[in-house]
Amino acid sequence: MSKEPSSGLESAMQMLIKTFHKYSGKEGDKYTLSRGELRELLTEELGNYLGSAQDKDAVEKVMNDLDSNNDGEVDFTEFIILMGALTVACNDFFLEYKKDDKEEKKE
Amino acid sequence: MSKEPSSGLESAMQMLIKTFHKYSGKEGDKYTLSRGELRELLTEELGNYLGSAQDKDAVEKVMNDLDSNNDGEVDFTEFIILMGALTVACNDFFLEYKKDDKEEKKE
Repeated sequence: MSKEPSSGLESAMQMLIKTFHKYSGKEGDKYTLSRGELRELLTEELGNYLGSAQDKDAVEKVMNDLDSNNDGEVDFTEFIILMGALTVACNDFFLEYKKDDKEEKKE
Repeated sequence: MSKEPSSGLESAMQMLIKTFHKYSGKEGDKYTLSRGELRELLTEELGNYLGSAQDKDAVEKVMNDLDSNNDGEVDFTEFIILMGALTVACNDFFLEYKKDDKEEKKE
């Protein structure tokens, strides 16, 4: 098995793992995101999608929603649930946009 | 907002959406994966990780596990749940591997 990803999906999986560990390793538990690390990840990596992540309350809300076991840390599974929900939301937006586009062309 | 992804996470999300639609659009409902489309996606895009996906039984098993509403089609949310589970499994494997590596160095 080669170490290089051979497809887009495999690169996407590796990118999710790499990005999580880039931030989780900064302070405290190396395998979970603290509030500060989550804020940094959201701001630097998802600034385009989550403009309001600079807002401290927004980060608190995401953290509280994600941190299902209430230990003040987000583990990898909780992070993947967030990314999955965001991706589904993006896809819905994209389909809605395409539908509107088609309806406009029909008129 | 720019259309180009500005970070790895944004590219990963776009790659997941793009790959799903590449296969879902081939036959029948354009927004869901049929058994045939799922088999093609697993074989062509995740062959490295899921060697046994060429095996017809393996595809049937994944399809039955994913198709939570039993309509014989996998929608985008069901696909994202599969990708999330695979990514968590990959991350666990990676951490286990790193742990073993460290323990070996200690000896």
